[in-house]
Amino acid sequence: MDEPVVYLSGRMVPASQASVKIYDGGIVLGATTTECTRTFKHKLYRLEDHVARLYRSLKYMRLDIKMSQEDMMHVSEEVRERNVKLLKPEEDLGLIHFVTPGEFKVYAGSAAGGPPPAPTVCVHTFPMPFYVWADYFRTGAHCWTPSIRHIPPQCIDPKMKYRSRMHYFLADGETHAADPKAVTLLLDLDGNITETSGANFLIAKDGAVLSPTTRNILPGVSRQVVIEMCADLGIPFIERDLQVHDVVNADEALLSTTPYCLAPVTKINGIPIGKGAPGLMFKRLIERWSQLAGLDIVAQIMNSKP
Amino acid sequence: MDEPVVYLSGRMVPASQASVKIYDGGIVLGATTTECTRTFKHKLYRLEDHVARLYRSLKYMRLDIKMSQEDMMHVSEEVRERNVKLLKPEEDLGLIHFVTPGEFKVYAGSAAGGPPPAPTVCVHTFPMPFYVWADYFRTGAHCWTPSIRHIPPQCIDPKMKYRSRMHYFLADGETHAADPKAVTLLLDLDGNITETSGANFLIAKDGAVLSPTTRNILPGVSRQVVIEMCADLGIPFIERDLQVHDVVNADEALLSTTPYCLAPVTKINGIPIGKGAPGLMFKRLIERWSQLAGLDIVAQIMNSKP
Amino acid sequence: MDEPVVYLSGRMVPASQASVKIYDGGIVLGATTTECTRTFKHKLYRLEDHVARLYRSLKYMRLDIKMSQEDMMHVSEEVRERNVKLLKPEEDLGLIHFVTPGEFKVYAGSAAGGPPPAPTVCVHTFPMPFYVWADYFRTGAHCWTPSIRHIPPQCIDPKMKYRSRMHYFLADGETHAADPKAVTLLLDLDGNITETSGANFLIAKDGAVLSPTTRNILPGVSRQVVIEMCADLGIPFIERDLQVHDVVNADEALLSTTPYCLAPVTKINGIPIGKGAPGLMFKRLIERWSQLAGLDIVAQIMNSKP
Amino acid sequence: MDEPVVYLSGRMVPASQASVKIYDGGIVLGATTTECTRTFKHKLYRLEDHVARLYRSLKYMRLDIKMSQEDMMHVSEEVRERNVKLLKPEEDLGLIHFVTPGEFKVYAGSAAGGPPPAPTVCVHTFPMPFYVWADYFRTGAHCWTPSIRHIPPQCIDPKMKYRSRMHYFLADGETHAADPKAVTLLLDLDGNITETSGANFLIAKDGAVLSPTTRNILPGVSRQVVIEMCADLGIPFIERDLQVHDVVNADEALLSTTPYCLAPVTKINGIPIGKGAPGLMFKRLIERWSQLAGLDIVAQIMNSKP
Amino acid sequence: MDEPVVYLSGRMVPASQASVKIYDGGIVLGATTTECTRTFKHKLYRLEDHVARLYRSLKYMRLDIKMSQEDMMHVSEEVRERNVKLLKPEEDLGLIHFVTPGEFKVYAGSAAGGPPPAPTVCVHTFPMPFYVWADYFRTGAHCWTPSIRHIPPQCIDPKMKYRSRMHYFLADGETHAADPKAVTLLLDLDGNITETSGANFLIAKDGAVLSPTTRNILPGVSRQVVIEMCADLGIPFIERDLQVHDVVNADEALLSTTPYCLAPVTKINGIPIGKGAPGLMFKRLIERWSQLAGLDIVAQIMNSKP
Amino acid sequence: MDEPVVYLSGRMVPASQASVKIYDGGIVLGATTTECTRTFKHKLYRLEDHVARLYRSLKYMRLDIKMSQEDMMHVSEEVRERNVKLLKPEEDLGLIHFVTPGEFKVYAGSAAGGPPPAPTVCVHTFPMPFYVWADYFRTGAHCWTPSIRHIPPQCIDPKMKYRSRMHYFLADGETHAADPKAVTLLLDLDGNITETSGANFLIAKDGAVLSPTTRNILPGVSRQVVIEMCADLGIPFIERDLQVHDVVNADEALLSTTPYCLAPVTKINGIPIGKGAPGLMFKRLIERWSQLAGLDIVAQIMNSKP
Repeated sequence: MDEPVVYLSGRMVPASQASVKIYDGGIVLGATTTECTRTFKHKLYRLEDHVARLYRSLKYMRLDIKMSQEDMMHVSEEVRERNVKLLKPEEDLGLIHFVTPGEFKVYAGSAAGGPPPAPTVCVHTFPMPFYVWADYFRTGAHCWTPSIRHIPPQCIDPKMKYRSRMHYFLADGETHAADPKAVTLLLDLDGNITETSGANFLIAKDGAVLSPTTRNILPGVSRQVVIEMCADLGIPFIERDLQVHDVVNADEALLSTTPYCLAPVTKINGIPIGKGAPGLMFKRLIERWSQLAGLDIVAQIMNSKP
Repeated sequence: MDEPVVYLSGRMVPASQASVKIYDGGIVLGATTTECTRTFKHKLYRLEDHVARLYRSLKYMRLDIKMSQEDMMHVSEEVRERNVKLLKPEEDLGLIHFVTPGEFKVYAGSAAGGPPPAPTVCVHTFPMPFYVWADYFRTGAHCWTPSIRHIPPQCIDPKMKYRSRMHYFLADGETHAADPKAVTLLLDLDGNITETSGANFLIAKDGAVLSPTTRNILPGVSRQVVIEMCADLGIPFIERDLQVHDVVNADEALLSTTPYCLAPVTKINGIPIGKGAPGLMFKRLIERWSQLAGLDIVAQIMNSKP
Repeated sequence: MDEPVVYLSGRMVPASQASVKIYDGGIVLGATTTECTRTFKHKLYRLEDHVARLYRSLKYMRLDIKMSQEDMMHVSEEVRERNVKLLKPEEDLGLIHFVTPGEFKVYAGSAAGGPPPAPTVCVHTFPMPFYVWADYFRTGAHCWTPSIRHIPPQCIDPKMKYRSRMHYFLADGETHAADPKAVTLLLDLDGNITETSGANFLIAKDGAVLSPTTRNILPGVSRQVVIEMCADLGIPFIERDLQVHDVVNADEALLSTTPYCLAPVTKINGIPIGKGAPGLMFKRLIERWSQLAGLDIVAQIMNSKP
Repeated sequence: MDEPVVYLSGRMVPASQASVKIYDGGIVLGATTTECTRTFKHKLYRLEDHVARLYRSLKYMRLDIKMSQEDMMHVSEEVRERNVKLLKPEEDLGLIHFVTPGEFKVYAGSAAGGPPPAPTVCVHTFPMPFYVWADYFRTGAHCWTPSIRHIPPQCIDPKMKYRSRMHYFLADGETHAADPKAVTLLLDLDGNITETSGANFLIAKDGAVLSPTTRNILPGVSRQVVIEMCADLGIPFIERDLQVHDVVNADEALLSTTPYCLAPVTKINGIPIGKGAPGLMFKRLIERWSQLAGLDIVAQIMNSKP
Repeated sequence: MDEPVVYLSGRMVPASQASVKIYDGGIVLGATTTECTRTFKHKLYRLEDHVARLYRSLKYMRLDIKMSQEDMMHVSEEVRERNVKLLKPEEDLGLIHFVTPGEFKVYAGSAAGGPPPAPTVCVHTFPMPFYVWADYFRTGAHCWTPSIRHIPPQCIDPKMKYRSRMHYFLADGETHAADPKAVTLLLDLDGNITETSGANFLIAKDGAVLSPTTRNILPGVSRQVVIEMCADLGIPFIERDLQVHDVVNADEALLSTTPYCLAPVTKINGIPIGKGAPGLMFKRLIERWSQLAGLDIVAQIMNSKP
Repeated sequence: MDEPVVYLSGRMVPASQASVKIYDGGIVLGATTTECTRTFKHKLYRLEDHVARLYRSLKYMRLDIKMSQEDMMHVSEEVRERNVKLLKPEEDLGLIHFVTPGEFKVYAGSAAGGPPPAPTVCVHTFPMPFYVWADYFRTGAHCWTPSIRHIPPQCIDPKMKYRSRMHYFLADGETHAADPKAVTLLLDLDGNITETSGANFLIAKDGAVLSPTTRNILPGVSRQVVIEMCADLGIPFIERDLQVHDVVNADEALLSTTPYCLAPVTKINGIPIGKGAPGLMFKRLIERWSQLAGLDIVAQIMNSKP
């Protein structure tokens, strides 16, 4: 087969046929939990951490998918193994897990009884489109805080990675009306910095790295890598409530996320951060990360082509 | 064809083949807006109101689906017309509209450029499973207020009907741990009554009908029917912030929603409301509605079988 | 004298010499209350209402300026009378009152005792620069809701017109980074619409005019004119909490304020409101107002030149 | 010249002539940022820290004053140098920086175009009226928490030192109605301790110094001195949310601020704190500070006369 | 018997022996609901309304006291009948109902099982000490808003009359430190006016009576009398969120409560309201009430002696 | 005497006669502060800490009970000494302190003047009904988070142990409607975990013990024992805001409280925590505590009989 495979509720199917019924709870309720892992040189990075978080989310959702974490890792490796064969050597994969509550029986016409629906479980991949993020590494990203606020933990806890993201979609609409290339950075209901729709947000100030608290954010696996690298390098990593004023007056700001690991943020709401260019903390951390990953992360991104 | 048709982004497809790609924004972001209309005696009820609200939601989402409200009504009528042929005379249809932002290009492998994704537009139906709700009409529903709160309007405005409903899924988990048959009634961040996952919530007290304000709820089409029936019948309809204490001490409580129009709520958090049985305001309104609809709504539900 | 006069704490001084010490509480604390009245055909419009509100603010501030409302009106008329002589017939004046707590004694070097400082009281005018607002009447204003929120009433009550407006200055910075011509429309801490830095905000929907509640806004004198005109014209005027969704889906939106009375708002956060052009409610009200004022308000603005 | 000089937007003027136009943004909007530095033995203390914070505030305000931090320090030193000559040896100066957005063009009659207004930049001094605070050192200050709350950071971030202080003026009115000599200590919207209008607030408990978090307060330069002295003396300095209950049951409470460095607070809302008298932590810190400053801070204050 | 009787859980006991065990839930938890009714000319006023509210509170508490509303009214009348015999003709009684959850079994040593505790039900009276409130009728009451806030309805709904009043006790401590004779008026968490510890709070403005909404207050029986009198007299009665600014600038303010019916408030936080003296709205309403009650309410209070 | 004694406002009385007047502020206002100490082998444990906290609460309440901490300890020991004589060797006592504001003079008929009421001070004991909690040690407790929220510190500070607990009573009603054996765990207004009505709540995760911050909880004496044992055993003890998601995904959860010291929590809202059984951290800590207490805490509980 010359197309990727997708694991879908027990079967391996060709990517072009990977779809879910319009009655699936993922479509009807958006009540989906997900993970995004990537490969470095075609090997999955920290898969175990991602799968563990997936199962924490499933427990919080009270969903039993009748599949152990070990099985999930085997399936993930199998999907990876089959799909990396389609890659060039310099390419890498993103690997997505998602689980939905399964068939919404009223819409599906199956409300008359029978067993409760089985969750939909999917593992799929995509070739990393690094070129999409290359500008972040040239000039830095521009973060924008729209008027829309992040959903508070007493509604949906951000410690689970979920796909009910209408608020992000609405917020992006506002952000892109201000700057079509800007990245939405949501504030919480009290005006504290939280996260972007695809990344954790960090600042560097006076030699330390500062992060919002886990009350308001996904405890990201890439963020965890930053924490561990900081420990190795003797850089203090501090969690506390941060406001826009902290970002405006930071030395640097950073996005950490699975696809591109770590990127510099050089503007917030149109105001340059620090010198308005990628800074030394970014360089120090990304070099370390490249060592850990065994490839030059920035070069891979900058050399990537559509 | 002996199966229903589904309108899906420009094509009529058999229901058994109606699915969306796993890369669709409806799956990836849950950023879907929707409507639910029903038929009475195989005719769509207030379709125009539902389509108008759909377009208000689309405007709020900044989505242009390149399709006029008139076209959407024609498509809806066509889907209905083809699908009611599969019904028995005493049955009726639910008709769903949903729109997603379309392909999520990074996951789909199409991030390299090209035009922005076209929204996914779907119109489908389902035979009304009235038997599912029959108990509400026998003994009344039991509403439960879990600890999880409704998403506030500064995150996602409930005046749009959206499918980012992880909070409802989580809240239902909590509710059903208390009573597997109970209906989740979410409070807002200030402890005011809002709505259930599928219906508007109303109370009757001293001859009037009271409703939460539109700050916290979908301004439901069925709720609008109640407003109009109240005007006709000389019953005051009052909007104000309501708390659980108001419900506990109401004469009656009601759910209004497209599928079953209006149902009595006879318990909240285990406490009987009024006499703990369907009351006179419910009877007066449902009889009026049956007149308007041209069929006995309660009888249709009670006679329905799986 | 060929320059305007300014009333400043008991004296009439030429405008070019009207200044306050750098130790004045108006500079040191921004603890200033103010009013803005205008003339129509060189006569002050609703001066009595503005002066009455000024004295309500002074009472709330516990400031006794040793001057009756009648005296304040006489002084205001005298300033107007002397300054309108410098106008062309088609021009009009804005007339500003402001009161500060007077000398901040520590900075002024007078902390050693003596009586408490006397408030600084000022009445000055400026020729109305109508051309500044002409675009609102051609294409409508664009309102933008930045991430910064309005100060809540338990900190500073917006029912007083005050000059501690750093939040507006910061919010304008954010708004103008999105669109240099946009007008800041602040949300409250709960995401409700409040007001702009210079005007009340209203929407028109289904033949009614809707306004935020007075909890969150200045009860503007021009807004009061709108209320009275609505009563005369049989247009319902409704106060309730409004959100951005209401504005996006309104038929029209409006700004009411002393300098230009009433202007159409045709976009919010980049989304057109109604047809995206000045609408019928605006026209109906501004025509009525022109009758009341005895001049064509729109023509005066459109014909104005720098 | 036998009067102090004031630096005002590029010129040195005699203090008696230092004033700003009534059209200045400092008067019209209160949108002013400021700093307060003092001398010890006629030398400026930590000027660099104050100027650095001023520029952080200006960056947050998006104001470019066309003047480097170095130039600002030179100007400050020049103003100091000229004005200390008027002092007695035992006296000291306060030195104020403030920056406003400059002319408010509509009121100034300059709205017709031209360049945007240049900010107003001012550096002035005042002889320290130490006798004003002498009672704090005799009996301790009395702090009062009025019903008015501090402005939250999502409206104006307290990490900038700003002059939109109507809330403090209103709060002082309430405080002084309870006790004319009491000092206002504002709570935040959640009831946490913040700061007074002129000082940071600290408590001592079980050998440690505790402070509110920087979310709610100015990160004061004098507070920074306390942090550094605590580090030197082996006293833990802890930041966390504090409530009135913590203050009532503290061993001691303290005010830290530029003019008088550190003062004991011995009562809150009429309840004695600790023994109701200046305590050991105060003594230990003020002695240390006196060493650092090279003069006896308390003696200077107690010997000061009007 | 020459002392009053008290109804206590099924028995009539002499007042001097009316006590509850230290293990009673009323003492241990403060989880007590209560009512206060009074007599006019020795007849109970609106007893039915008070008993009905008591049973609404009991329902909200899920307490079944095995006693009908009719029985409760009979018992109340019996207590009244026996106790009014001890009064002088010009005196009147207050009649208190309270219900606690009964014995707290762990403390009582009865935790080993047995039936759940029976609620403690008490009806007692006290001679009205009108002289205590006489000053309100001479000079008006002084209301003070302390920094402590009212308990929000999502914790304890104020629509029930409850005795968990530590917040009022603490707030009174703060108020009385400011003015020993002032009456505490609590704000809610958003800074809106709520109620005093013993009365509803109302203002009069421009010929109307305004009240906070029932979200934040007990819907008082005396307040209901005001509503009915306003309806009779053609005075608009308006419910909406009120802030301190509204009170400062009201024409009059009022307390309504069972013991003294209606009293003028003439100061708030030290600021005179209106003319700082009892006003016309007060006089109009108290005269009407005196007619309804069949005695001169103010005279009875002013003539009362300790 | 063969019954326990109770210290009541200066007198020792037999327990069967220990009661308070129905006019006592403890009954009328619930404005009572309290402590609960226990014995191990008939000796009071950490009495000094409990008495110190009682006096911190009294100071916050501005109540002067004319009795030193030393006297209170003597009285406590005397009550203990007399009452332990009635115990079997394997039994232990709980010892309660409570203080109320004393007579509520209006209801008591003593409003005519005289001195302010003397506080009611009570010290009593009860034999520990360990069997009541035995199930916690067999299967673990089930915690439930109802929709009712904890009272925030700006209303009543939870750092004092108070008896205005209507919110707990109402919350228990909701919890017990879900599961009659579940323990109420209240969330704060922001959805953070606080405490149960009788215990502090802790979780164990990755070898550390985590606790909510003292903003939201009683700083329990038993919790302090846990802190000290953690320090001894090298277990990190971390304070931060926790949410239900943290509990669902904790390794273990624990209740700490005077009567039974430490108990495992094995379910929250119906979801098992960790392995759903008492865990290793619990065992390690309770063994340590048993060493400190000099008896096997679990055995004492498990062997206890009604």
